[in-house]
Amino acid sequence: MASDPARYLPLLGIVRSLPAIVRGVSVEVVAVTIFVALLCVCVLIGHLLEENRWANESTTALILGLCTGFLTLVFSKWHSSHFLSFDEELFFIYLLPPIIFNAGFQVKKKQFFRNFSIIFLLGAVGTLISFCFISTGSYFLFKMIGVASFGIQQYLAIGAIFSATDSVCTLQVLNQDETPLLYSVVFGEGVVNDATSIVLFNAVQKLDFNNFDAVSALKLLGTFLYLFFTSTALGVAAGLLCAYITKKLYFARHSTNREVAMMLLMAYLSYMLAQLCSLSGILSIFFCGVVMSHYTWHNVTERSRITTRHASATISFIAETFIFLYVGMDALDIDKWKQSNGSVRTTVTVSGILLALIMLGRAAFVFPLANLANFFRSNAKIDFSQQFIIWWSGLIRGAVTIALSYEQFSTSSSTSSDDAFLITNSIIVVLFSTVVFGSVTNPLIQVTLFRQSRPAPAADMDPPSLEDIRLLFLEPANRGVDEGGSNQRRSGVGLIIWHPTSAAHYFWRWFDDRFMRPVFGGRGFMRLIHGSPPHEETENV
Amino acid sequence: MASDPARYLPLLGIVRSLPAIVRGVSVEVVAVTIFVALLCVCVLIGHLLEENRWANESTTALILGLCTGFLTLVFSKWHSSHFLSFDEELFFIYLLPPIIFNAGFQVKKKQFFRNFSIIFLLGAVGTLISFCFISTGSYFLFKMIGVASFGIQQYLAIGAIFSATDSVCTLQVLNQDETPLLYSVVFGEGVVNDATSIVLFNAVQKLDFNNFDAVSALKLLGTFLYLFFTSTALGVAAGLLCAYITKKLYFARHSTNREVAMMLLMAYLSYMLAQLCSLSGILSIFFCGVVMSHYTWHNVTERSRITTRHASATISFIAETFIFLYVGMDALDIDKWKQSNGSVRTTVTVSGILLALIMLGRAAFVFPLANLANFFRSNAKIDFSQQFIIWWSGLIRGAVTIALSYEQFSTSSSTSSDDAFLITNSIIVVLFSTVVFGSVTNPLIQVTLFRQSRPAPAADMDPPSLEDIRLLFLEPANRGVDEGGSNQRRSGVGLIIWHPTSAAHYFWRWFDDRFMRPVFGGRGFMRLIHGSPPHEETENV
Repeated sequence: MASDPARYLPLLGIVRSLPAIVRGVSVEVVAVTIFVALLCVCVLIGHLLEENRWANESTTALILGLCTGFLTLVFSKWHSSHFLSFDEELFFIYLLPPIIFNAGFQVKKKQFFRNFSIIFLLGAVGTLISFCFISTGSYFLFKMIGVASFGIQQYLAIGAIFSATDSVCTLQVLNQDETPLLYSVVFGEGVVNDATSIVLFNAVQKLDFNNFDAVSALKLLGTFLYLFFTSTALGVAAGLLCAYITKKLYFARHSTNREVAMMLLMAYLSYMLAQLCSLSGILSIFFCGVVMSHYTWHNVTERSRITTRHASATISFIAETFIFLYVGMDALDIDKWKQSNGSVRTTVTVSGILLALIMLGRAAFVFPLANLANFFRSNAKIDFSQQFIIWWSGLIRGAVTIALSYEQFSTSSSTSSDDAFLITNSIIVVLFSTVVFGSVTNPLIQVTLFRQSRPAPAADMDPPSLEDIRLLFLEPANRGVDEGGSNQRRSGVGLIIWHPTSAAHYFWRWFDDRFMRPVFGGRGFMRLIHGSPPHEETENV
Repeated sequence: MASDPARYLPLLGIVRSLPAIVRGVSVEVVAVTIFVALLCVCVLIGHLLEENRWANESTTALILGLCTGFLTLVFSKWHSSHFLSFDEELFFIYLLPPIIFNAGFQVKKKQFFRNFSIIFLLGAVGTLISFCFISTGSYFLFKMIGVASFGIQQYLAIGAIFSATDSVCTLQVLNQDETPLLYSVVFGEGVVNDATSIVLFNAVQKLDFNNFDAVSALKLLGTFLYLFFTSTALGVAAGLLCAYITKKLYFARHSTNREVAMMLLMAYLSYMLAQLCSLSGILSIFFCGVVMSHYTWHNVTERSRITTRHASATISFIAETFIFLYVGMDALDIDKWKQSNGSVRTTVTVSGILLALIMLGRAAFVFPLANLANFFRSNAKIDFSQQFIIWWSGLIRGAVTIALSYEQFSTSSSTSSDDAFLITNSIIVVLFSTVVFGSVTNPLIQVTLFRQSRPAPAADMDPPSLEDIRLLFLEPANRGVDEGGSNQRRSGVGLIIWHPTSAAHYFWRWFDDRFMRPVFGGRGFMRLIHGSPPHEETENV
């Protein structure tokens, strides 16, 4: 892959032949102008259609991209919309990082860590299950129909490619304040799923499939875990380093520019370093964002905080819109369709198979794992309607699928017809799921969430408060023998066993206040420097 | 230029041969990681050296780039630092626009328009004079020494290339509040100079030099003026459209993201459209920024204002630092030095000639034109020390010179030795002027400005106030026959003739309040919507 110079093409994937250049201007200028103009139109239309229940930003951008691709084809007399074909390096190096960073930066940390076990279960273990399901399913069913002749490595790649979800549509509909648990799980699972799919995909590239046995499978798992932990550690280290720098050097005596620049650049650096070391950039930059929002953000001035928060959100928003535009335009790159050797019927069948595998594969883990998690949760159980929404949120396939599909099946200048066939099917699956499932998401969720009776408040028991645990463990002198309220207090051992999350939270708070904040800053740091009341929008950790 | 596929290379100008790839990772990942890491280091060092009188951000970045280029050479065993060579498309499409937009967005409009005549005189007319001086000077002197065999078109290109100043160093030293006139002139002249040089350069590319006569020269001038006005109109139109959209649609009922995205994207679109139509993108995006700061900025929420202002400044800051890093690294791209056929002595001589031409050429217009402008100014004349600083500020050459030099002399895959010779000389001139002149700038300005006695306040007469003009023209009924204070009021005709700027300002304010603000919004618009006192940092227009 690395040796093909044709892969190293400018930002917008200008491939081999260049279409007619407008009055001597370079194609890159034309392409960038078109994209920027489309982005402006998207922002506008997205705003106008905000109240519409069937439309959302993603589908709007996708459809706009399709229209543009179509017009380009018409104007180029059906030669090609080649100058608009998808460049996966652009996606992985420039478009994905801001989206994930913003996710980590804006996440409600308390909810996220409280639900971390189920998020990890669904996002990592669930994705593994889905990966196995889709790989084996496609292996048998493709052979049965008699389409394509892929090797084991490619079937495994297909499994990874189609396990990567895109829960943006659902998140645009769910309200973080009304359904905090559901939002947190869907959100967190989306990020962990992205990371897991990409890690799986990369692992599949490197394995030796001639000697694939149980040992290899264990090695795969081991590599997987190693990657997860190392990437997270890298991201956390980057975030802490930035916090330390902003606390010690206190930039703001001179300029907001430097503070904002430092935060954004260090986060991006954590992503790139992870990519360089073949780790998971997504996990790095996500946890870098989490750490920064906990420490660094509080070390900087009010203006820097506002700027970082909103600039990060805006860049993420632009990147997401750009991606969907790009995918839409790429769908009409006619060369792929010409190269693909499948008839319409075969193509529709295969796309149908893939969609069915996606839906069944997801059901195969969401419901079992959610119920398993419920067994261990004493409070805030995930009821069936919520499980249904979690299942639904992961049916849509998006840019990660497209990008991985290209990486796998479009590596040489002469793409085989089987490869082209798979790419075209990926596009169909992505388009169908995003447009059809995406449009239905809003009404479906309204119906699902509000038709079921809301769980009674009593069932949503509060976890033991930090106060309980503090009283329990660290201040025995304050507990008089005859102090009442033993109904309120729960037994010590019982607390740790049955509420490990709360105990963990309490110890984390102690550790954070005692060791971390004195070194890395955090909430309250700016107040100490300035002596003025904080204006900040408080985070709930 | 457009037909050479080698020109269409990824973002960081990876040329023909790819150096050893780190563990199968693409070169682009390596290059981006290095650049981002260096940017972080620059931000840090820049902050630590803030108080230092000899260092500034530009020189720091340049020197850091040089060190990195050197290390790369050492590690690649003196083969090449090829993967770091300058890509001028990257510069013109992605790095320059944010810098110019921020300039327009942050400029103190009152000062800028008040001094517009001298800014235009120095920036446009002065650059033309410098262009002629350097072209003819290099033509005769190069022939005299017997170096290089260029055609007329190339000598003219050399004139344009070395007329493009980089006044960043001076602006970092001058204080906008202490010396508003000087700052405004240096700043404005820098922007207009950039635009003029690039326009001249592009004109030189297109002219037919076989039949170059007076008619052609007039055509050149005509094209030049047409480009100026059309580009400005385009930028203004984009700014007004954005203002209209934000006022009518009032995005903020939903999100800051969209407001910020819309402003930044539309500004960038104005630049790209101008480039597409072969106009001056610099002028478009500059005036787009000016218009946006006057209308659009006031139509959006407080948070959007803070975000846009600081995000724009930060992106501009990062781009500037990136450019200097890039130039520094590119200086050690060993292939150019190998290709160049000049001996050390010849190279030094030619660089010396170019620097001398730059200094003399600039003196040839700064002092005469400034004195000419002073003749027509009744107040705030530019004294000699200020003229000296204006002259000094334009001696430094920067990224625009490098970029134009590459565009002219590096268009084919086989660069002739003469072409390589010129490129290496451009690099030497840029490095020398930035490092040597740049380091001396701070102490020099301190000495110059504070050694001369400050002009007596009386000499800095206020222009007639808007009140005078209003009383004079539009409210005759309020003027009683026996109202005193005729010493204060000046005669009507005299006002317009001798203070055309003030009269123009008054009429502009009337036109703006009467016709423009009702349609496009502006200051006070948000107060009407929200009914809350404005928190904004007020602009002095």
